[in-house]
Amino acid sequence: MFITFAKKLVLNKRKIINDPVYGFISIASDLLYDLVDHPYFQRLRRIRQLGLADIVYPGALHTRFHHALGAMHLMSQALRTLQEKGHLIWEPEMEGAQAAILLHDLGHGPFSHVLESVVIPGVPHEAITLAMMKDLNRHLNGRLDIAIQMFEGTYPRRFYHQMISSQLDMDRMDYLNRDSFYTGVIEGSIGADRLIKMLDISHDQLVVEEKGLLSIENFLHARRLMYWQVYLHKTLLSAQAMLTQIMHRARELAAAGEHLFATPDFALFLNNRFTLEDFYNQPDLLTAFNGLDDNDVWASVKGWKTHKDPVLSTLCQMLLDRNLFKITFFDEPPGEEVLAPLRERLTARGISETDMRYFLITGETTNWAYEKEQDPIRVKMKRGNLLDIADASDIPTIEALTKIVRKYYVCWGKNVSLRG
Amino acid sequence: MFITFAKKLVLNKRKIINDPVYGFISIASDLLYDLVDHPYFQRLRRIRQLGLADIVYPGALHTRFHHALGAMHLMSQALRTLQEKGHLIWEPEMEGAQAAILLHDLGHGPFSHVLESVVIPGVPHEAITLAMMKDLNRHLNGRLDIAIQMFEGTYPRRFYHQMISSQLDMDRMDYLNRDSFYTGVIEGSIGADRLIKMLDISHDQLVVEEKGLLSIENFLHARRLMYWQVYLHKTLLSAQAMLTQIMHRARELAAAGEHLFATPDFALFLNNRFTLEDFYNQPDLLTAFNGLDDNDVWASVKGWKTHKDPVLSTLCQMLLDRNLFKITFFDEPPGEEVLAPLRERLTARGISETDMRYFLITGETTNWAYEKEQDPIRVKMKRGNLLDIADASDIPTIEALTKIVRKYYVCWGKNVSLRG
Amino acid sequence: MFITFAKKLVLNKRKIINDPVYGFISIASDLLYDLVDHPYFQRLRRIRQLGLADIVYPGALHTRFHHALGAMHLMSQALRTLQEKGHLIWEPEMEGAQAAILLHDLGHGPFSHVLESVVIPGVPHEAITLAMMKDLNRHLNGRLDIAIQMFEGTYPRRFYHQMISSQLDMDRMDYLNRDSFYTGVIEGSIGADRLIKMLDISHDQLVVEEKGLLSIENFLHARRLMYWQVYLHKTLLSAQAMLTQIMHRARELAAAGEHLFATPDFALFLNNRFTLEDFYNQPDLLTAFNGLDDNDVWASVKGWKTHKDPVLSTLCQMLLDRNLFKITFFDEPPGEEVLAPLRERLTARGISETDMRYFLITGETTNWAYEKEQDPIRVKMKRGNLLDIADASDIPTIEALTKIVRKYYVCWGKNVSLRG
Amino acid sequence: MFITFAKKLVLNKRKIINDPVYGFISIASDLLYDLVDHPYFQRLRRIRQLGLADIVYPGALHTRFHHALGAMHLMSQALRTLQEKGHLIWEPEMEGAQAAILLHDLGHGPFSHVLESVVIPGVPHEAITLAMMKDLNRHLNGRLDIAIQMFEGTYPRRFYHQMISSQLDMDRMDYLNRDSFYTGVIEGSIGADRLIKMLDISHDQLVVEEKGLLSIENFLHARRLMYWQVYLHKTLLSAQAMLTQIMHRARELAAAGEHLFATPDFALFLNNRFTLEDFYNQPDLLTAFNGLDDNDVWASVKGWKTHKDPVLSTLCQMLLDRNLFKITFFDEPPGEEVLAPLRERLTARGISETDMRYFLITGETTNWAYEKEQDPIRVKMKRGNLLDIADASDIPTIEALTKIVRKYYVCWGKNVSLRG
Repeated sequence: MFITFAKKLVLNKRKIINDPVYGFISIASDLLYDLVDHPYFQRLRRIRQLGLADIVYPGALHTRFHHALGAMHLMSQALRTLQEKGHLIWEPEMEGAQAAILLHDLGHGPFSHVLESVVIPGVPHEAITLAMMKDLNRHLNGRLDIAIQMFEGTYPRRFYHQMISSQLDMDRMDYLNRDSFYTGVIEGSIGADRLIKMLDISHDQLVVEEKGLLSIENFLHARRLMYWQVYLHKTLLSAQAMLTQIMHRARELAAAGEHLFATPDFALFLNNRFTLEDFYNQPDLLTAFNGLDDNDVWASVKGWKTHKDPVLSTLCQMLLDRNLFKITFFDEPPGEEVLAPLRERLTARGISETDMRYFLITGETTNWAYEKEQDPIRVKMKRGNLLDIADASDIPTIEALTKIVRKYYVCWGKNVSLRG
Repeated sequence: MFITFAKKLVLNKRKIINDPVYGFISIASDLLYDLVDHPYFQRLRRIRQLGLADIVYPGALHTRFHHALGAMHLMSQALRTLQEKGHLIWEPEMEGAQAAILLHDLGHGPFSHVLESVVIPGVPHEAITLAMMKDLNRHLNGRLDIAIQMFEGTYPRRFYHQMISSQLDMDRMDYLNRDSFYTGVIEGSIGADRLIKMLDISHDQLVVEEKGLLSIENFLHARRLMYWQVYLHKTLLSAQAMLTQIMHRARELAAAGEHLFATPDFALFLNNRFTLEDFYNQPDLLTAFNGLDDNDVWASVKGWKTHKDPVLSTLCQMLLDRNLFKITFFDEPPGEEVLAPLRERLTARGISETDMRYFLITGETTNWAYEKEQDPIRVKMKRGNLLDIADASDIPTIEALTKIVRKYYVCWGKNVSLRG
Repeated sequence: MFITFAKKLVLNKRKIINDPVYGFISIASDLLYDLVDHPYFQRLRRIRQLGLADIVYPGALHTRFHHALGAMHLMSQALRTLQEKGHLIWEPEMEGAQAAILLHDLGHGPFSHVLESVVIPGVPHEAITLAMMKDLNRHLNGRLDIAIQMFEGTYPRRFYHQMISSQLDMDRMDYLNRDSFYTGVIEGSIGADRLIKMLDISHDQLVVEEKGLLSIENFLHARRLMYWQVYLHKTLLSAQAMLTQIMHRARELAAAGEHLFATPDFALFLNNRFTLEDFYNQPDLLTAFNGLDDNDVWASVKGWKTHKDPVLSTLCQMLLDRNLFKITFFDEPPGEEVLAPLRERLTARGISETDMRYFLITGETTNWAYEKEQDPIRVKMKRGNLLDIADASDIPTIEALTKIVRKYYVCWGKNVSLRG
Repeated sequence: MFITFAKKLVLNKRKIINDPVYGFISIASDLLYDLVDHPYFQRLRRIRQLGLADIVYPGALHTRFHHALGAMHLMSQALRTLQEKGHLIWEPEMEGAQAAILLHDLGHGPFSHVLESVVIPGVPHEAITLAMMKDLNRHLNGRLDIAIQMFEGTYPRRFYHQMISSQLDMDRMDYLNRDSFYTGVIEGSIGADRLIKMLDISHDQLVVEEKGLLSIENFLHARRLMYWQVYLHKTLLSAQAMLTQIMHRARELAAAGEHLFATPDFALFLNNRFTLEDFYNQPDLLTAFNGLDDNDVWASVKGWKTHKDPVLSTLCQMLLDRNLFKITFFDEPPGEEVLAPLRERLTARGISETDMRYFLITGETTNWAYEKEQDPIRVKMKRGNLLDIADASDIPTIEALTKIVRKYYVCWGKNVSLRG
């Protein structure tokens, strides 16, 4: 047993953090400092923002830790702008909004969205985030009350929630900015500085000044570009599909009683299916969850590359060597005329019918830059009225961005053979 | 058993790679493409350039993979500059020099320099690099002959070796540039573009034109700044000391027959001491070595945080939570007047005499921006003669940079207690 | 009389020029060096790229000199890319294309487009450019033959002309890039690097690879944004209208025999109307034209601010002090219901009916990001066929960008009074 | 006569200004807005920060207008930092310090330092600045009282003056930053962001925290580099020498009764020698001075290029065509062994003895990066004591930077001939 006491605060009161994106990020209060310092938040150092994206963009290694700090920075910039425009922002609100955005990603597991449904099936990461925030709040004697209300959307002044979660929130602004920066896809840069200068509040709603119309249009275009160029990049989708299949296979083997190399915390989640209630009822489960990060997955993939199950070991070795499945996009769901020949080829390479789903994967992606159904982006016109951005823009491009684009893909192990 | 056949080349002929630092990096030939594609090189995706530095600079997550590509890019820029100045660069030399710099870091193990002496004691990474290059060369039927000669310094035209390894090589230029970029320490930027435009060859030596004097001075200043601001940052040294002690303890326990969680490849190296000869004599050892990367270390630290040995588990948990040892610098080696009281405090916290070395660590760092003893940086004066930069500069700052700066540090677990 | 002899080449063989936008620009041959060195080209140092735009964006002071160098740089990058893709580019073509783009703006007078119709009415700047290129060619004994053919579109390989003048030429790429950089409107950045890497030639046409589709879309969006945010900025249009009226008034006074302060060269053009034939027939006219630049206009405005004509002096003083006319946009041409009240107010301030046109100005602006009627931007699909970008893009935004946007404005001297 | 009434404020309340260097600059109060709006400040749009430097660095066209805004921005950032560190900054002080730095360059004439001693001999620009500030203060009923006290150094809290004028003032920080940016000499970048974060106040002195030591060292190195690479660049010195000689000649001719083309305001200063008293006693003199800017000089040079005086016209034409004098540096003042042969060659080209000084110019430049004699840069050590940076730095490079470097040059018209 060990006990850590005193406070490491004494060691390094670094309240200014270097950030290649914004220059410097200031941690503005003791509460925020303690949150950053907490093991829950420190874990985010080991979870990448973009999962496997470095397989296409080698610079895209930034973490949720850095993203959350960046979002907190934008929040403080935005609130300062609102103050300068004459809106009253109380000190506890300033801190609460920063705390809420700082913690908004706590519940992400290894590889975030990619493995969310495989590692802890049925429990969305937002729910875990909330559980962790509440756990922190208990230890902090309610100092996160406002932050949690803002996060959940129950705080009286609604616009705070919109700054944390909406189509123009600080989360989105930071990740688009940061992903564009680290991938090197500079066309995706959104001009966060100007966007923030254009924010205002009207009728308790977060709005954009009319003169920011072009900037919002640019923001939506950049978002669309990032989707196709980065988030839905073919090579990345292929690697993600492979990693997902690896986890499915591992779960299947574990369920069948096979021994699988894994860190103790990861083994716990591989061998069990927990519900959201479990997280609230079993005090140690959050601690165990906090033991998970990207390294567990990579170490497992490396440990399994020599596993005796040929499906598992083949997939792992191929992913490690960046020997990826071939992937093709379709406008319509691919039918048998596409799939049958592939299945035939894979069968000829020794893939059994039951294992076929690991080597022939279909899926779909949808993307729209602006979701009109959701809470809209509101523009405050010079005359004072508010308009949905799609109505405020006098040109037809915004309208075009609200169209859903759906694509289907087939991803298959062209280079695979399981023949002994 | 599995067989991968055909070539994935068919899948993704991405010969242009996005790089936030240089914009784009081109892979200029099929040989270079195949090298990048090889598992030996792909492994570098999983080895960070700066080890634990993200503990201070959260953006510093870039890998040796990206660095090696960047150095190859600078090499091609530099050789093109030399061509424009009228020097003959043969196509095989162009490719060879790029291949050599691309592969120069293959032999780095997890956490590079930090753990070099603990993971594979007694075998320097350069020796492993050479073993891997020779192994690749065998498979490539000698297509790396020139690259290996350039790397070893046996190629007739000496300046190639200087471009790969000297005080003004492409390795150094890229890492200073890249480390400055990703840490956000912009004062460390070296202006690689201009430096490269100033390169020339004279008497088969890599030289700098006289009008590049200020740029070289700036390069040396930037290098010195990066040392103190980044590479020798106190917090980073503390974290590195802790990680090193973790590995020492693990080896000690392993030697004593204790079971330790580890991936199979990492277990092999934890439980054995290999010599350089082993790498040449045991064909599979390079493959096993190629199974090692940063994930093994992190997964181990995570696996060991609940190990029954309190020294090991305490150190691991503290590092994971960024709960670091206190560190102090001294101009002289700290004597008993410094160490005795610390030892006393630690003893009072239940640290035994034999375990003391894990919680009270002394060390030294030395740094000089320009090493006059080594192969100097040569300046080609307008009159045609060559001068050592330290003599060419008419101001005394360069001379100042050749002074060795040596600092001593004590690093100790101020917050630790092993009392049950 | 004076004679300059010998060559200043001896003085400063600076063949590398610092450029904040691209880092460095290399002047790659002696011919290009001599062209840059020539008084015709040096004059462009004194003609700003964006005329009065610094009245809104104080950083927008860059010149046509710098722009032309930048376009030459992009040309060399683009041709090198084409070479790497296997296209044969002869050395004289390489030089010719660079020369042509370098000289393409020679014929711009002071304040470029703004004053084009006032300073030399009826002679478009492209015609003067050609006259100057031919004049240079005479002195260079035909060394510009290829450049002139490429510029005029008579060179056999058509794609060169497209690189000099089309919807995806190096001119446009550099000015969008450069204007975005110097105004600080970073949302207008086009990612020229990537665009250039995506260029190819097919059937003697300049084309873009299919994987560059998103980059082209982004290029068109950025172009549209720059139009509304910069080129057609209301405040800028107002200042331009005022400057144009100043020149009209000055010409009117000069025609009436009034003495007007002006440099000798500028006086020549103020007091005469030259035709294109005059430029070819009168050898000294090009030299006189080469004596004109932005300084003539500014010095005149300053000299005229105390002119006894109240219309002229009022307009000049207001422009110098940035005391600008009020401007309003309309979707339809404004009718009498808009203009009559303004006319009334101005009459009440002492503006006579004949002077009214100097203080109440109407105009229109049109803008489309992509002109489908013109030579289209061609995309080479993976299957090898060429498509117009508007057809290649599977989303409707491009189509939207081809719509012409036309706006009408009224600009009037709200603060003016001519009452004595 | 004309009257401008109402306020143009109504027209464009642009209180945010785009700046490529800092992103955005906010004008934080109505007083500051009115100052920016005033013709005294608007004139700075027409005075370049670096005079003729674009002759070497074509991007270096930024103006004192932009620089002053940038310095005001840094002032607000620095004061905010000081507030965050617990120092009390009153609102009127915040505004006063920003006003003072905003106006600190008002008194610069055309081409600033270069022509200072020729255009208004004997009256330093700081004195004119003060006269203009006092004139403004009269019209503003004393609202500039604090700003003027801070500027003059009579305000009780001394550190404000140090922020306006010292070796670490906001003026210097902005111009180094901005000059580095626009010349493209990126090695000169000083990391203003970090420097400002490191500022503190101790004993009413502006100080730097000890952990900012490396940043200050870097700042001094960058400053030294900018001197040699930009401010004292040989080609620039040559062009400046030529322009200065042009003005001397013009004054000489004017004194001899020759007619010289010039704008009315410029003619006034060419034909007279005013004293500082004149500026205080003659109310219209400041207005006339405010009529001067770079355009007067360029228009004159263009107007004089055909003047009948061969010395004047030759110098003007050469400068316009960038046909510059040859320049050579010496460590010692060049003696007759250097000058005599040059004089001989020039005589052979028709230069008379009396005109010799226009074509054979000697001069000296001195430069030191850190002036120990002046008010030092103070470092607040962790223990709380203040040290001169030269003593705080434990390495010898700072000491080296305090050495004065003096160079002598000879500049002569190698290509000139005055033979008819």
